[in-house]
Amino acid sequence: MLDETAKGVFTIAVTPFLPDGALDEASIDSMVAFYEDKGATGLTILGMMGEAGKLSAEESVTVVRRVIARASVPIVVGVSAPGLAAIRALADTAMEAGAAGVMVAPPAALRTDDQITGYFRNVSETLGKTPWVLQDFPLVTGVQMSPKVCLQIFAENPSCVMLKHEDWPGLEKISALRRAEAEGARRVSILCGNGAQFLPEEMLRGADGAMTGFAYPEMMAEIVRLTGAGEVEAARDLFDIYLPLVRYESQPGLGLAIRKYTLARRGAIAHPTVRKPAPALSDATIAEVEALIARQEGRLSART
Amino acid sequence: MLDETAKGVFTIAVTPFLPDGALDEASIDSMVAFYEDKGATGLTILGMMGEAGKLSAEESVTVVRRVIARASVPIVVGVSAPGLAAIRALADTAMEAGAAGVMVAPPAALRTDDQITGYFRNVSETLGKTPWVLQDFPLVTGVQMSPKVCLQIFAENPSCVMLKHEDWPGLEKISALRRAEAEGARRVSILCGNGAQFLPEEMLRGADGAMTGFAYPEMMAEIVRLTGAGEVEAARDLFDIYLPLVRYESQPGLGLAIRKYTLARRGAIAHPTVRKPAPALSDATIAEVEALIARQEGRLSART
Amino acid sequence: MLDETAKGVFTIAVTPFLPDGALDEASIDSMVAFYEDKGATGLTILGMMGEAGKLSAEESVTVVRRVIARASVPIVVGVSAPGLAAIRALADTAMEAGAAGVMVAPPAALRTDDQITGYFRNVSETLGKTPWVLQDFPLVTGVQMSPKVCLQIFAENPSCVMLKHEDWPGLEKISALRRAEAEGARRVSILCGNGAQFLPEEMLRGADGAMTGFAYPEMMAEIVRLTGAGEVEAARDLFDIYLPLVRYESQPGLGLAIRKYTLARRGAIAHPTVRKPAPALSDATIAEVEALIARQEGRLSART
Amino acid sequence: MLDETAKGVFTIAVTPFLPDGALDEASIDSMVAFYEDKGATGLTILGMMGEAGKLSAEESVTVVRRVIARASVPIVVGVSAPGLAAIRALADTAMEAGAAGVMVAPPAALRTDDQITGYFRNVSETLGKTPWVLQDFPLVTGVQMSPKVCLQIFAENPSCVMLKHEDWPGLEKISALRRAEAEGARRVSILCGNGAQFLPEEMLRGADGAMTGFAYPEMMAEIVRLTGAGEVEAARDLFDIYLPLVRYESQPGLGLAIRKYTLARRGAIAHPTVRKPAPALSDATIAEVEALIARQEGRLSART
Repeated sequence: MLDETAKGVFTIAVTPFLPDGALDEASIDSMVAFYEDKGATGLTILGMMGEAGKLSAEESVTVVRRVIARASVPIVVGVSAPGLAAIRALADTAMEAGAAGVMVAPPAALRTDDQITGYFRNVSETLGKTPWVLQDFPLVTGVQMSPKVCLQIFAENPSCVMLKHEDWPGLEKISALRRAEAEGARRVSILCGNGAQFLPEEMLRGADGAMTGFAYPEMMAEIVRLTGAGEVEAARDLFDIYLPLVRYESQPGLGLAIRKYTLARRGAIAHPTVRKPAPALSDATIAEVEALIARQEGRLSART
Repeated sequence: MLDETAKGVFTIAVTPFLPDGALDEASIDSMVAFYEDKGATGLTILGMMGEAGKLSAEESVTVVRRVIARASVPIVVGVSAPGLAAIRALADTAMEAGAAGVMVAPPAALRTDDQITGYFRNVSETLGKTPWVLQDFPLVTGVQMSPKVCLQIFAENPSCVMLKHEDWPGLEKISALRRAEAEGARRVSILCGNGAQFLPEEMLRGADGAMTGFAYPEMMAEIVRLTGAGEVEAARDLFDIYLPLVRYESQPGLGLAIRKYTLARRGAIAHPTVRKPAPALSDATIAEVEALIARQEGRLSART
Repeated sequence: MLDETAKGVFTIAVTPFLPDGALDEASIDSMVAFYEDKGATGLTILGMMGEAGKLSAEESVTVVRRVIARASVPIVVGVSAPGLAAIRALADTAMEAGAAGVMVAPPAALRTDDQITGYFRNVSETLGKTPWVLQDFPLVTGVQMSPKVCLQIFAENPSCVMLKHEDWPGLEKISALRRAEAEGARRVSILCGNGAQFLPEEMLRGADGAMTGFAYPEMMAEIVRLTGAGEVEAARDLFDIYLPLVRYESQPGLGLAIRKYTLARRGAIAHPTVRKPAPALSDATIAEVEALIARQEGRLSART
Repeated sequence: MLDETAKGVFTIAVTPFLPDGALDEASIDSMVAFYEDKGATGLTILGMMGEAGKLSAEESVTVVRRVIARASVPIVVGVSAPGLAAIRALADTAMEAGAAGVMVAPPAALRTDDQITGYFRNVSETLGKTPWVLQDFPLVTGVQMSPKVCLQIFAENPSCVMLKHEDWPGLEKISALRRAEAEGARRVSILCGNGAQFLPEEMLRGADGAMTGFAYPEMMAEIVRLTGAGEVEAARDLFDIYLPLVRYESQPGLGLAIRKYTLARRGAIAHPTVRKPAPALSDATIAEVEALIARQEGRLSART
């Protein structure tokens, strides 16, 4: 079961599809193996970048069961939904199938501090004993949670064990939460998102790792290791080699298609298909990705 | 099957719950009978005011089947969802169960005209032969569709047979669409929402009826009849009697709880329960509703 | 100077223009006389419905000076702006010209409770001793202030003397604020907006009056008087006569043009011009307004 | 006068303030000299990152006049405002003072294609012969303009001579516009924003340069030169050295304070002051900036 000590790299997994848009179950297996091989200490499935919204309820269950059956690391399942009944239904299925915990983002309509904390009290009551991750992603949800609100959620809901941090900018938020903990607040795990664009700084501010889906999880695993070992300059050197592609993959709207292209190129999944409605990658975009990967590989070789 | 000739009052049905939040299936039966008795020519279920977002996928299917089993009028099923797979899954279930058609609102992220028309081409392809209703509700979805965009959607997708009109203000949109039809555009049915706040004017602009859930469907049925018969002043006289309550029930956030209170008071459903998270009606609110109903009943009696 | 005891009807004044879009200064004079004659106990100028955003800085100053020169009632000046420097500049000009106070709405980007209260501390410091009105209008600003946040703003900023209440729905907010005051919180004046759609209920919940621009201020003055005198049924009877037009004038986007049409028809201003970009009233809309006014006048006559 | 042939780097200038928040006019002089020395071929003032919204109308005029008096390169003045009268007032002042053109972003409320093109027809008519730049920044404005809409704006308004491109992602938009031009559409200048995060790719897609405010304009000037000379790998090598800081300065909310800190550190302005309300830089943030600059300088030295 997921708890406050979780650390490392929980990769946000994609959902693989066949060229016709059907679930590609074989690629689920190869993808899980790929992520684990590249250093993932956990996987998060059915997140926004897992195209959760594009799956039917039945398909979601298929993905959950297949991933859990293959994985040897803990699995977190995204269960965000417009209503509590759908959250409970998927969470129950996931936990029965062997998930380590679930993740919930706030619905877009929430505005005031009281609305937000009230919503998560309802969520926590709905989930019962299931450990859950608070997803803080204002760029997409439009919901802004101050450190004070996050701390209140952690205090009121002991089964909330982790913050998926992707406020942007959010470095000060990590520092504020860690300061509050030093003064007695309950400590939770903080794993960071945003495509790893700020991972070195996030680790130095006190994060426990990454929860994001950049197509080279080995970079994230190594940054976590190096910063943990105090080798900050080595971490930055490595990060800078990957940064041009990290940046390119972080483009809203297009980023997932770029990520799936790269994962298919690396053999993690069989097809780069993104489910409709989705943008197709133009030849120009593919050429840009290839140029960035070639430069990245060249710089990695030059290092050794 | 629903088609472009639909008219009258398609009541937006609530979803009845027991005091503990479970589905109240017995009240589904009484509610269907109530709506039909009060003049509904159709029912629309699993809409926003039907708390569709708060149901699990399984509960949605239960509601669809129960309503269709009891009803003698055509049933439209709201199938809006973040992705096409979920739309298809519920639409297929609904049509197999005997629904007359489905209704789809645009997801909140759509902005440009091309994004909107592209989305509905995908929806229409996904739905196949199923007749569908375009829900135009910018106050909630944030998506604004100009008359030009609506007309393009109707032209490109023959299976789109109806507009659920609740742009606000939207009287000019009705006129613009009817003018375009007079000049050769394909005619669709227009049923109007927004709690019936503008029903007399909407009918005079060319609407075919109402699709909204005001707790007195008999008022809407009578307005449709009177305006159709050219008895405009009589329609306005009747409308004005109900308007204070129409207005009160149209309050965002609180409106559904008020509507369910009134429906329970009228015996249509057994309990006024709104599923969590939901506001409770204060004593002051209940007193206001009661005062408005008492005055409404007084004025209706005085008429005869 | 405006203070916490303000009550009655502070009419939201329009800004009159000539047909070519230039300021119509002569109509400012007639409009002020009209509003005072119809029972306004104050005027609020340069609000959203005063087309403040469409005026140059110089024109704003002209309007402020002309209105204050003619009026015998206290004048509140809307000074909302993206930055504090512009707020201070207009507030200083207004107070030097003899305004009673100013009004400030939160910028649309504010989300968390702390952001909102922090913003208004900055505003209050910027305004110095100038009394100010907190405008709470989430439908337009997108900023939601819970009763707790409002109370904190009142407590922290003694120069904030009034709430322009147009949360929607907001009846519970009035009750919550009045309850808090009964338990010791500082009392401020509450004047209600939203085109007077809920004025009888607002008065019974504890509001001190109206601050909105419905084209028949005499109705609002009379409702305030009647509810104050305990003549609730008489207040409702009067309100119901005007409600069809209140509703029609409350249409977003189109409402101001309808209001100016009515004010021009009543002789308050010379021209119904709304500054570009603005919708023109169609013949159908004008016919609908005329029909509503005719019915309203008929029912008023029948009363006497 | 600005025209369609503009290219190179139009730096988005900051507005310098003294520690107490007053305008720092002496720093305007040093800043203009700094930008020109570092390769700016133009300056854009009173943009969003120029804190335009925080200036009074009078202060805006002071900034415009002072910058133009000192600069030898063309000056573009941001004139976005809620209404056309304010746009005209500032544009007229700017052009009389010797500006080369003005820049206008769409107001946040615009949604449909027709609303957007209609708005800019009004803007263009208001501006008369003044050349203007269309600012396309959906991340901040919320307004999305498809390539089709941009092309219509360019076709309808000959005085629109430039696109400030900061759609994100927007590489495909550049390609789409250049393709349309190849097929006969009117060509406009495209300068790119977004803090230069995608500058190499943007230049290769057909952009004419950059219009953004990264604190090292010499990098942008060199990227423009190198890509223009076909030295793509050299451009990427240089870009990659600056990218960690480009990324760090691109953080929403905090980015401007980081930029001003860096500019003050480089001697371009005397103080890093951002006007209230504004975030203060924490010690941790300053240490991060310093670490990034030290690494950047090290890598630049190692190159030579």
